[in-house]
Amino acid sequence: MSLKPIREEIDKIDEQLAKLFARRMECSKRVAEYKIEHGFEVVNRAREDEVLNSAAEKAGIYGNSARLLYSTILELSRALQYDMAGGGNALKNEIYTAENAVPRNENIKVACFGVEGTYANQASIKAFPNCTLDFCSTFQDVFSAICSGEAEFGVVPIENSSAGSVTEVYDLMLKYRLYISMAIDIPVNHVLAAKKGTHLTDIDKVYSHQQALYQCSNFFKNHSNIVVQTYLSTAAAAKMVSQSDDMTMGAICSEEAAEKYGLDIIMRGFQDNPNNKTRFIVISRKMYISENSEKISLCFSLPHKTGSLYSVLCRFAVNGLNLTKIESRPISGTDFEYLFYLDFTGNIKDKNTLKLICALSEELTEFSFLGNFEEVIY
Amino acid sequence: MSLKPIREEIDKIDEQLAKLFARRMECSKRVAEYKIEHGFEVVNRAREDEVLNSAAEKAGIYGNSARLLYSTILELSRALQYDMAGGGNALKNEIYTAENAVPRNENIKVACFGVEGTYANQASIKAFPNCTLDFCSTFQDVFSAICSGEAEFGVVPIENSSAGSVTEVYDLMLKYRLYISMAIDIPVNHVLAAKKGTHLTDIDKVYSHQQALYQCSNFFKNHSNIVVQTYLSTAAAAKMVSQSDDMTMGAICSEEAAEKYGLDIIMRGFQDNPNNKTRFIVISRKMYISENSEKISLCFSLPHKTGSLYSVLCRFAVNGLNLTKIESRPISGTDFEYLFYLDFTGNIKDKNTLKLICALSEELTEFSFLGNFEEVIY
Repeated sequence: MSLKPIREEIDKIDEQLAKLFARRMECSKRVAEYKIEHGFEVVNRAREDEVLNSAAEKAGIYGNSARLLYSTILELSRALQYDMAGGGNALKNEIYTAENAVPRNENIKVACFGVEGTYANQASIKAFPNCTLDFCSTFQDVFSAICSGEAEFGVVPIENSSAGSVTEVYDLMLKYRLYISMAIDIPVNHVLAAKKGTHLTDIDKVYSHQQALYQCSNFFKNHSNIVVQTYLSTAAAAKMVSQSDDMTMGAICSEEAAEKYGLDIIMRGFQDNPNNKTRFIVISRKMYISENSEKISLCFSLPHKTGSLYSVLCRFAVNGLNLTKIESRPISGTDFEYLFYLDFTGNIKDKNTLKLICALSEELTEFSFLGNFEEVIY
Repeated sequence: MSLKPIREEIDKIDEQLAKLFARRMECSKRVAEYKIEHGFEVVNRAREDEVLNSAAEKAGIYGNSARLLYSTILELSRALQYDMAGGGNALKNEIYTAENAVPRNENIKVACFGVEGTYANQASIKAFPNCTLDFCSTFQDVFSAICSGEAEFGVVPIENSSAGSVTEVYDLMLKYRLYISMAIDIPVNHVLAAKKGTHLTDIDKVYSHQQALYQCSNFFKNHSNIVVQTYLSTAAAAKMVSQSDDMTMGAICSEEAAEKYGLDIIMRGFQDNPNNKTRFIVISRKMYISENSEKISLCFSLPHKTGSLYSVLCRFAVNGLNLTKIESRPISGTDFEYLFYLDFTGNIKDKNTLKLICALSEELTEFSFLGNFEEVIY
């Protein structure tokens, strides 16, 4: 016996199965036409359950698999029907009337998280080389400044390759309903800095933001005589060391911060992960989408039900869209609902992508289109 | 015209389609038998691509949908074949020989993150009411203590409902290859504490861990005269305030910490989210699985390819398993690979769940079974 005869039989089955599926999709199309004409809802859960149960029954011992297969078929036919119904007009209009590229070279007001010399400051300069930065000490202040019109854009961190997402910023995105109009990846290259004339052997205390200290843990394991002290930010630690008279203190900060506060760089390249980077986002009240926008961010909620995420991902997969990030978070105060944050590659002005996102904006509860933006990587 | 005739046609198609699908699964079963007998690999990517392309071609204008349908069919037949091949014996043996319930009442050595009075301390007491706690100032120290045998169990935070996952702990789980043997959810109820005799109006500086300060941002917005200062931990802030002579200082900490350091509670219930909680995990070198274990944690990597996550989720959905958490993280140093962390409800001693997880442990690269544990919620 060889595999050949079985495979031939499979090929014959597939021949019929693919054709039946195409015929079924044709029928779904007619159902959609009817529903659109008569103003019916696309989704009919009772009918869907009937189809699922009947398929499971007919497939005998393969009932569970048939049920899953049919949930895919139903999702595909729902996608077709939503596609034809062309829903999500509110979002569609917003996208059509979105601004083009972010005005990077003009003299516009930008609210930047943190203080001078931080990585956020670097990101702001990359994004807006010629403009006034207004530093805000909290994320919330950045968001408020944009909403009140004091600033047109804001720059805040959204994730770090070691530390993960900055969930507070995600929360504020939903709360203030702003858009992501650009993303800037800044390599995190910490240096050990101290007052001029200090040597590594003099240092017995090092100050920095706790994330930065964590990112250099191997160094501290090998220099166990040095006491580590957490500080508000890397740049604030550099500033504090520069203002002290104590020659036994060091700060872990960016090269820019060391320079700004007139500190000597005692050591470079000692962080655990040499490829560490932080992603900053540029946020704005207006939606900006250019032809270079290649990343789309969404947020939506799903019921806590077997296969609910699977069904949504079906829609992305059938459109050939690549997820680059997915994160679930329980919705505070509910026990069985989740918010999902998704990033995927694409430009929303692509016809199929636009249709999909606009359809999902109607189908899913708590749907937010967070933006379609360009990624600037240094 | 009504929907009835179209639906009747769909029912007829489904009748044939479900049967064809069952026949196809039957053929897959025979292929699996052949492969097992001859020691062949389950996956044959070349053959799969051929099947996908041919289905897409036969379905005409529904080609994209047919391709997705077939990727589901192939995943289902792969699931059947892996099921029959019964792979993942290494993991299966580990699970069969796992310890039963965590010995919560014995006098065992437990390494706890932080200092006395922290939420981690509360979690440790809930998990191990009668045992010696050894406090460790870093996550890494907790993991090392378990690996060296100094402690049998460790208690560390894994996620907070506002702040998200503690990615460092996930990294250490993979690095040290320990297991999660219990999860404890601790409600985070911050109080404002100060030295005995201090009034709210006296306080002009408040110290705490930055997460705790963030969780009380609304309070500080309404008390803008108070300066906030980040500190190593909530309990350390309480201790520092108790040792100072300054009656204008406050600390945000747990009620337990305030009590422990002899501070007065000035205010309660002022945090932004009253349902905030932190999940702590009990970790161990040995695997513990009891009949009450109802949550399974996994980690694996997937290639950056359209539909790769969708395919894996198919396997969970067909087994009726409910995801409760999913998180992707880029793998440092690679541009196109992702690690996924998944939690889902289930007990691995259930036959189908065991088969699935053991099969995935062979199919997926970088697969880690992180544990199947009981959740203790206060």
